[in-house]
Amino acid sequence: MNTEVAGVQLGVAQAGIKEAAHDDLVVIALAPGTRTSALVTQNAFRAAPAQLAEAHLVLAEALPRYLLINTGNANAGTGEAGMQSAGDCCAALAQLTETDATAVLPFSTGVIGELLPAGQISAALPAALDDLRDTGWERAAGAILTTDTRAKLRSTEVELHRQRCRITGIAKGAGMICPNMATMLAFVATDAAIEAPLLDELLLDAVQASFNRITVDGDTSTNDAVTLSATGQSGIEITAGSEHAEHFARALTTLMIELAQDIVRDGEGASKFVEIRVIGGESEAACDQVARTVAHSPLVKTALFASDPNWGRILAAIGRAGLEDLDTDSVSIHLNDVLIAEHGARAASYTEEKGQEAMAPGDLLIDIALNRGDAEAVIWTTDLSYDYVRINAEYRT
Amino acid sequence: MNTEVAGVQLGVAQAGIKEAAHDDLVVIALAPGTRTSALVTQNAFRAAPAQLAEAHLVLAEALPRYLLINTGNANAGTGEAGMQSAGDCCAALAQLTETDATAVLPFSTGVIGELLPAGQISAALPAALDDLRDTGWERAAGAILTTDTRAKLRSTEVELHRQRCRITGIAKGAGMICPNMATMLAFVATDAAIEAPLLDELLLDAVQASFNRITVDGDTSTNDAVTLSATGQSGIEITAGSEHAEHFARALTTLMIELAQDIVRDGEGASKFVEIRVIGGESEAACDQVARTVAHSPLVKTALFASDPNWGRILAAIGRAGLEDLDTDSVSIHLNDVLIAEHGARAASYTEEKGQEAMAPGDLLIDIALNRGDAEAVIWTTDLSYDYVRINAEYRT
Repeated sequence: MNTEVAGVQLGVAQAGIKEAAHDDLVVIALAPGTRTSALVTQNAFRAAPAQLAEAHLVLAEALPRYLLINTGNANAGTGEAGMQSAGDCCAALAQLTETDATAVLPFSTGVIGELLPAGQISAALPAALDDLRDTGWERAAGAILTTDTRAKLRSTEVELHRQRCRITGIAKGAGMICPNMATMLAFVATDAAIEAPLLDELLLDAVQASFNRITVDGDTSTNDAVTLSATGQSGIEITAGSEHAEHFARALTTLMIELAQDIVRDGEGASKFVEIRVIGGESEAACDQVARTVAHSPLVKTALFASDPNWGRILAAIGRAGLEDLDTDSVSIHLNDVLIAEHGARAASYTEEKGQEAMAPGDLLIDIALNRGDAEAVIWTTDLSYDYVRINAEYRT
Repeated sequence: MNTEVAGVQLGVAQAGIKEAAHDDLVVIALAPGTRTSALVTQNAFRAAPAQLAEAHLVLAEALPRYLLINTGNANAGTGEAGMQSAGDCCAALAQLTETDATAVLPFSTGVIGELLPAGQISAALPAALDDLRDTGWERAAGAILTTDTRAKLRSTEVELHRQRCRITGIAKGAGMICPNMATMLAFVATDAAIEAPLLDELLLDAVQASFNRITVDGDTSTNDAVTLSATGQSGIEITAGSEHAEHFARALTTLMIELAQDIVRDGEGASKFVEIRVIGGESEAACDQVARTVAHSPLVKTALFASDPNWGRILAAIGRAGLEDLDTDSVSIHLNDVLIAEHGARAASYTEEKGQEAMAPGDLLIDIALNRGDAEAVIWTTDLSYDYVRINAEYRT
């Protein structure tokens, strides 16, 4: 797969933060003039690196030169010492590359509450810098994983009036996944040139349609972050309100949805990929609320794991989602194409066989029609399996 | 244990709704003049029996003569046919006992979405009536169970100025437990005489402090219901505003808390009983919100299962609970008596050994101080284990 984005180089190294010999450090070098937009978690216990990345982005006037990412340690719940440690890592990279520390955006993922070993990271930085290359996306995608079982790398070429630009992105995340106005770690770059307000807008819109639509366990991380960097080296300029902007936004959103769905498919212990679509609500927020209530219901999730078309649990979850004056008679539920419930009861046409058949595939659509408005919302999620419990009883987030 | 409440008789029978030979039908007969108050689930998909019980209670002017309870079938998500079926059962019991159908309050628990076999229940009613006895509480407590592993029966004697009255109650529930302004099935009776408005008030207050403070899986049932019946046969009269009322309310609340905690201790797959106490919030609602977010976090729950003092997950859950402008520096967390986190980081005095020790017992207190107000709230919950997944992948709610 061709993933290269002109103006972006990636290098990996082993800093020894993870116990086994494993790449756990990534440096992403951005060519001068590359404009970057970032969104970080809304969790009140925002990790030190997430706070510092936000601050540096402002100080660097959206033109940072390096993204510095480590796995194995989230540097969250580490107070003042954690902030110091994140700053030390940025300073070390800045010194080696003769830039300002504010030109470095730090990102961390892994165990919460352990102090980040800045010394180990600094010591491994020269190796990561030596490793910088245009083709480094795949190895970088592998080096940022924690409980993930698969790397998440997506790339697409966008054709804009016979010119082409590329968008490539990597992401990590399998547990503590319920991004809210932010996302898991994801780093996306393009060789198009995009002015600041449009870049922010494109990122926010794409995140709303992708990472903010997924949930594995309802737990919003302290370290979620996503960046979008535009190097401009393709020579294509994208301006607000243009046809190019519209076209680019579609391609970016599609790529981010792919990355977001990759995270769900690799969700901890996941054996099912489930799309929950709620239509006919009075507002998008109401539809979203119903979709999330169903997506987070442990009873629905365990039924999905068992491939049990247990529509009663879906119905109970809809009923407790907090919609005012919900007329249960007007609610209908489909599993894929099978109508399972309507008028507050099992559909007359429904048979257990049809339900079993609909539940069998690994990919499933739960389609809920509220019939009280025109709004809709979609959420992507997984089931709840023995392996989810095993992974999280064994692993210390 | 002496459980008898003068004026209350209980009888059980096998109606064959559960597959194995098992008591699954309970009739509770209330002496004439017994005043009953009831609260039912706020789930929009309220089951037919819950709706009918509410309606009958009004029509019977709070003086119903019979509570009719079946397990094995929830008669929820059954539409018009379900309402008809619940009505038929009430009519059958009314005919046998020469009362009005509105004098019967029906309650069902078990699988959602299957039509209640009214014929089977009607056929078993004579056996249940033959079985009526003052000492029937224990067998009734056993006959209403579903995935519960233990009967939940509590009784207490209240001494009021040298007179005595008794309060006895039974409850069922192990999964789909997150009562909200209502509860799981619970039936409580006293031989005191209590006027209507006070009876309702006593029930509501006690439920708020007990059943509404527990959660196993965050899933609010379609069939939750609790009743409080006052036969008056002890000769003790309890009037609003009296010292007796205060004394009685305390005893009633204590008994309901015991029943509610019995449900949590028998929660599906539960290996831990966890009290989450949030203090120092700006309002009780805010404290409740934090406590519930921690209680529902699958990552916190799996860490509890693993007896892993993973305070980072607790901190992440507090951070996503939606409090405005939470100053994370002012939050502190104790596990039992061990201070684990303060100032947004691990406490200086904390050691892994102390944490392990605090996590070891089956009963655990997570004490969260927000330090931004005077309000507090408590929630009782369980861990998330392999057995929770097994039970809910195998059992059809």
